[in-house]
Amino acid sequence: MTDRIVLAYSGGLDTSVAIGWIAEATGAEVIAVAVDVGQGGESLETIRQRALDCGAVEAYVADARDEFATEYCMPALKANALYMDAYPLVSAVSRPVIVKHLVAAAQKFGATTVSHGCTGKGNDQVRFEVGVQTLGPELKCIAPVRDLALTRDKAIAYAEAKNLPIVTTKKNPFSIDQNVWGRAVETGFLEDIWNAPTKDVYDYTASPEFPPVADEVVITFKEGIPVAIDGHAVTPLQAIEQLNHRAGAQGVGRIDIVEDRLVGIKSREIYEAPGAMALIAAHKELENVTIEREQARFKKTVGQRWTELVYDGQWFSPLKRSLDAFIDDTQQHVSGEIRLELHGGRATVTGRRSETALYDFNLATYDTGDTFDQSMARGFIEIFGLSSKVASGRDQRAAEGN
Amino acid sequence: MTDRIVLAYSGGLDTSVAIGWIAEATGAEVIAVAVDVGQGGESLETIRQRALDCGAVEAYVADARDEFATEYCMPALKANALYMDAYPLVSAVSRPVIVKHLVAAAQKFGATTVSHGCTGKGNDQVRFEVGVQTLGPELKCIAPVRDLALTRDKAIAYAEAKNLPIVTTKKNPFSIDQNVWGRAVETGFLEDIWNAPTKDVYDYTASPEFPPVADEVVITFKEGIPVAIDGHAVTPLQAIEQLNHRAGAQGVGRIDIVEDRLVGIKSREIYEAPGAMALIAAHKELENVTIEREQARFKKTVGQRWTELVYDGQWFSPLKRSLDAFIDDTQQHVSGEIRLELHGGRATVTGRRSETALYDFNLATYDTGDTFDQSMARGFIEIFGLSSKVASGRDQRAAEGN
Amino acid sequence: MTDRIVLAYSGGLDTSVAIGWIAEATGAEVIAVAVDVGQGGESLETIRQRALDCGAVEAYVADARDEFATEYCMPALKANALYMDAYPLVSAVSRPVIVKHLVAAAQKFGATTVSHGCTGKGNDQVRFEVGVQTLGPELKCIAPVRDLALTRDKAIAYAEAKNLPIVTTKKNPFSIDQNVWGRAVETGFLEDIWNAPTKDVYDYTASPEFPPVADEVVITFKEGIPVAIDGHAVTPLQAIEQLNHRAGAQGVGRIDIVEDRLVGIKSREIYEAPGAMALIAAHKELENVTIEREQARFKKTVGQRWTELVYDGQWFSPLKRSLDAFIDDTQQHVSGEIRLELHGGRATVTGRRSETALYDFNLATYDTGDTFDQSMARGFIEIFGLSSKVASGRDQRAAEGN
Amino acid sequence: MTDRIVLAYSGGLDTSVAIGWIAEATGAEVIAVAVDVGQGGESLETIRQRALDCGAVEAYVADARDEFATEYCMPALKANALYMDAYPLVSAVSRPVIVKHLVAAAQKFGATTVSHGCTGKGNDQVRFEVGVQTLGPELKCIAPVRDLALTRDKAIAYAEAKNLPIVTTKKNPFSIDQNVWGRAVETGFLEDIWNAPTKDVYDYTASPEFPPVADEVVITFKEGIPVAIDGHAVTPLQAIEQLNHRAGAQGVGRIDIVEDRLVGIKSREIYEAPGAMALIAAHKELENVTIEREQARFKKTVGQRWTELVYDGQWFSPLKRSLDAFIDDTQQHVSGEIRLELHGGRATVTGRRSETALYDFNLATYDTGDTFDQSMARGFIEIFGLSSKVASGRDQRAAEGN
Repeated sequence: MTDRIVLAYSGGLDTSVAIGWIAEATGAEVIAVAVDVGQGGESLETIRQRALDCGAVEAYVADARDEFATEYCMPALKANALYMDAYPLVSAVSRPVIVKHLVAAAQKFGATTVSHGCTGKGNDQVRFEVGVQTLGPELKCIAPVRDLALTRDKAIAYAEAKNLPIVTTKKNPFSIDQNVWGRAVETGFLEDIWNAPTKDVYDYTASPEFPPVADEVVITFKEGIPVAIDGHAVTPLQAIEQLNHRAGAQGVGRIDIVEDRLVGIKSREIYEAPGAMALIAAHKELENVTIEREQARFKKTVGQRWTELVYDGQWFSPLKRSLDAFIDDTQQHVSGEIRLELHGGRATVTGRRSETALYDFNLATYDTGDTFDQSMARGFIEIFGLSSKVASGRDQRAAEGN
Repeated sequence: MTDRIVLAYSGGLDTSVAIGWIAEATGAEVIAVAVDVGQGGESLETIRQRALDCGAVEAYVADARDEFATEYCMPALKANALYMDAYPLVSAVSRPVIVKHLVAAAQKFGATTVSHGCTGKGNDQVRFEVGVQTLGPELKCIAPVRDLALTRDKAIAYAEAKNLPIVTTKKNPFSIDQNVWGRAVETGFLEDIWNAPTKDVYDYTASPEFPPVADEVVITFKEGIPVAIDGHAVTPLQAIEQLNHRAGAQGVGRIDIVEDRLVGIKSREIYEAPGAMALIAAHKELENVTIEREQARFKKTVGQRWTELVYDGQWFSPLKRSLDAFIDDTQQHVSGEIRLELHGGRATVTGRRSETALYDFNLATYDTGDTFDQSMARGFIEIFGLSSKVASGRDQRAAEGN
Repeated sequence: MTDRIVLAYSGGLDTSVAIGWIAEATGAEVIAVAVDVGQGGESLETIRQRALDCGAVEAYVADARDEFATEYCMPALKANALYMDAYPLVSAVSRPVIVKHLVAAAQKFGATTVSHGCTGKGNDQVRFEVGVQTLGPELKCIAPVRDLALTRDKAIAYAEAKNLPIVTTKKNPFSIDQNVWGRAVETGFLEDIWNAPTKDVYDYTASPEFPPVADEVVITFKEGIPVAIDGHAVTPLQAIEQLNHRAGAQGVGRIDIVEDRLVGIKSREIYEAPGAMALIAAHKELENVTIEREQARFKKTVGQRWTELVYDGQWFSPLKRSLDAFIDDTQQHVSGEIRLELHGGRATVTGRRSETALYDFNLATYDTGDTFDQSMARGFIEIFGLSSKVASGRDQRAAEGN
Repeated sequence: MTDRIVLAYSGGLDTSVAIGWIAEATGAEVIAVAVDVGQGGESLETIRQRALDCGAVEAYVADARDEFATEYCMPALKANALYMDAYPLVSAVSRPVIVKHLVAAAQKFGATTVSHGCTGKGNDQVRFEVGVQTLGPELKCIAPVRDLALTRDKAIAYAEAKNLPIVTTKKNPFSIDQNVWGRAVETGFLEDIWNAPTKDVYDYTASPEFPPVADEVVITFKEGIPVAIDGHAVTPLQAIEQLNHRAGAQGVGRIDIVEDRLVGIKSREIYEAPGAMALIAAHKELENVTIEREQARFKKTVGQRWTELVYDGQWFSPLKRSLDAFIDDTQQHVSGEIRLELHGGRATVTGRRSETALYDFNLATYDTGDTFDQSMARGFIEIFGLSSKVASGRDQRAAEGN
């Protein structure tokens, strides 16, 4: 039987060419796999047909938007996942859901190999291949750009020579990846890190410079997940989409950083994630209200490790799963409402209320009703500071002795 | 000899009354200590005279603004210290410098006890007393509000009865603490955490809602410390002051959170820290450019612990000193320039350049000049993912076996 | 109705006296609560009768040995809990199970207050009282030694005056606490930390100096819990008891450390925990065989925090529960057999086998059958070391530039 | 000019053959570099001459024993470095000092490439090559076993064909690496992890089964470093050597674990490190006596990361240097004496004394002289447990509400 290869297919020039390129280089049949994670653009049906027209023996398409929002974006929200305190893992959380469908397609169609369009110096090749290794340890991986010398120029020439049904425009100045959780832009003049981004870099967000009137939104959470917006029930996907729209209109969620890639280099990245950033701001503050201090402090450490792992392509690793068990346990009382003001690039929490709050007005207030017993403080301070006091006395004696 | 008590003196009603109140309650002589950490308001000379007029036997005043900026705020900047990812430790970093002067005054004037105006349910009592225990293990502490039943109403009555030279207006609705690193506001209607802050809460920042035209600033850092602004050399104090002014005019640095106090309660806090927040944004991005990945990842853990320790009043603890040794070592190449756009509540990095950058255009670029050897990637991925792959194979076998 | 106080009752002199002492000091009725956690000594029935004879209005006794072993010792084993890398939390894990019964008794008998025999400078007072606060937030706590001036001398005098049915021997030179998980000894000449322990300090262990012939034992674990010894099924309690016996005969599990107490002082402690130490040695090595590397590395951090929390009396805290969720998730494949040689104070793993091992002979071997692809190593090394290499180049250039 | 390659040369069969093998495969001149790190065996002069006889154009030999002990083993001691709580980094700390000499030799003799005898599936190749990349970013690496197909059989055939002055005995059943800090043994029948090690595996240690009479030793530390043994001044090298001898005679320091290699596989390793394990036991206990609690707790996290980094070949990384800055700061009062009993495989601390102890008899004692104020405890407990108490109340209300 002829060998079969599943290819992560976007419908664009590079992966359209890759169908024939891989087939010619390997002799295998190519099955195109297109997964909708909210990237917008053409319909899955259009993409499916193009894959077949470009020579794919089968085309597998999946609307994974709800799956992606619920099973991949929501865990990131519960972790408040911001790589380097900034990047909400836009591409990093989408790779595993695509891998899941690639492996499912490989098993369905009897393929031995998975292929993707990544280069050899980015994070995504690692996320794809480590994911595939993990979910389908028997599968091999191949990347035409990295392994089969498929350059942009060769792709244009190939598409024209084969008369493929795809527009071969000049390259976009940027490299872009987008989904419902956000949008990533890199390369081009951004590689000079002294250059500020220009307006054409952005698509999900309006400029925060001249914003419309402020937009107030109330988000209801249940166990860490948004379940209503302004009182109307929403699915996770709807929550993200609605906030992408409303926060995006206010210029919320633009990010510009120099980032540490897994492959050991620093790169300059621009992100837009209006919905993600608004949701994380609201979720963090609801955690402030509902999670006990020591649990919250350690959750930061857990969240940092979760974020690094997912950035590093280890979504399906045993540690990721155990960290999720920790995080899920912390979320059981993260329920309530957060009022957010969206305006001019800012998503500002202005109110919070929760049936399961640990904020206790009577303990906190300095007014009538105060239930805090201040006479306890002296004993606390004396013992809380004792080990430092003893050390300090020792240090002073040691310094005098020298 | 009569016992002597040094009192942290602000010049305001409560501590003015405390001079006589403590003297009457304890029979001791009271020495007033006023430390300028950039809180603004009256001159030290005015405050000194008032202390004497209110019955202090001595008054010790110190302009500690440069000392505070250089030795207390700069370490916080190097640590990117944001408690709960939000609060730049405004009061927490000022307490230790005040403690240092209190202990110095106690030693100079032969006092046995240190006194402060804090209540028994806040963090500051801990910061004062643990600090005093550590720097002067032989000193005792007393807090008239907490230990000698000095309430606001009693203070007003006392001031009027004794005809003290101090205005006894009605209580400000808020409890406020401020210094050059920022300003903290709490209590009043803010104790209802569903209430948004009103305009009168703020003083260091203009509203971000209708900002002036955007302000672009270039900050030069040397080993983690700002040394020039727009090319003009500055001291740490000048850097903070100038950015307080410029970022404050744009509404940068407003913070509104429910916070975990050391004494085990959650409280609602509003902060303004325009200079601090702008400097931290710039410093973090310069670190992104100049610090190696693994060093940066672990520095986050160190910075989190540093922040918790300082919040918890452990400035003079042995661990704090060892964490500083780590942090200082990381800063030796954090030098270069950051261009920041200040506008409408946002402090956005738009450019960075550094002689000691680890960002390497030739490694990062996808254009001509690329020096990254992409053929290395396959081996990296295979081995990087191996332990997860082996675990995943085991998990699948185990699942089948059940 | 007369106020009621439940008292943690051991049957010994101090708590026997405390029954009447508390009643006289407070006017309340005292209910004695005795919990068997494997401390040995008298029968629960004997203890129950003595409590009544000493004036308790009710006596509540509970054989909590299985509950203690299963719900308290096993989580400590799964966490490999060794405080300061040494102390298997002997007393620390027993306090919460006793607290649970104290609170249950308080609710059953309508008591408002819980009482215990601890002093005011140890850890156990914190463990009791924080536990009681957490499980029964409405309950108060009182400690006669600490709060009602009940000294040893007064206790002897009281017992003799009241003719209580308890032997009033001279004080044991040591303070001792014991249960099935181990035994703790402190005070006396051990407070001079240059003194070595003498033979009379020990009870659970024979001297390792002249041991009997080596004893080989095979322990079978299922999901982190011992389920068989030498092929015979055991409960957790039986596993600990049998290993206390066999490892104790070989002098395994003696510990002698200077320890950081929660109340800020260092104290010198001797422990014996032959079963616990043998089980932990076996469990750790089985984890080495069955847990993936990154999961194992992070589990150390989780285990350290778990251990500190439990040492610090936070058994019932939210963070403890979330850490358990993490740990439980890691244990799902910690199944298999460990062969241990017990001899002369050593519990040495000499063999391990597991159906769910991640140790893969074919990957590990250097002989025929090797499946590891060594050609992958170069790419791995190049990229793994890249960020350090770039940093090193920068450092060298910076050094030359200066 | 002919290309030159420096080769890490042991004097054994494999690297003796490698001299000619590399020269033939690459056309380069080979320079042999032998570094004495206390591995014992032949003299450096004998090794030097053999290298030349085998065809090396130059031979560079260095007695690095003191350098290794002082600059590589002592930092490991200060970190209490035990990988997976067990392995004292025997080979891991020796690789960087060898790398340093390899790079120095490469620079001295104008070589472009560094070569070593490691295979492609172990840790040492990474340690060598990442080290070389870092210290000499311009140097390349080559490993004849991994890259030039030099197998054991081919080596024997080559040595016989070329009549090299080296004994070509049958392969030792084990793969061994040793230096003054310890000895590592792997492969052979040890690859079956159910097999116990046999007596012939060990060389640095006598069997602990029938030990000589117990040996008591007093080790004096200054700032974390051993400076005297039984009152006689020692260098770090002498301290390790003397304790290797004395602890080795008692069978101290045998380790048998399944270990997580950096390359993603688990392997079975036997180590002997009598001096290292005795020193670490003593050093840890002296830290217990002299380091403040919170500093000690965080130092464990730092030490764990240090250990992982060094195991992973990152000795020369920026993070390693910053962690050293932390650790060094913690050691400034780790001075004093530890009395250790060495007997039958155990190195047991029996006494400690220090001028800079934080152990305070008067705070610790329950006898006359007690200076601890027990009345402080109630306030401490109340506030220490408050956040858990509030959370617990919330949890109970939430449970009732459901």
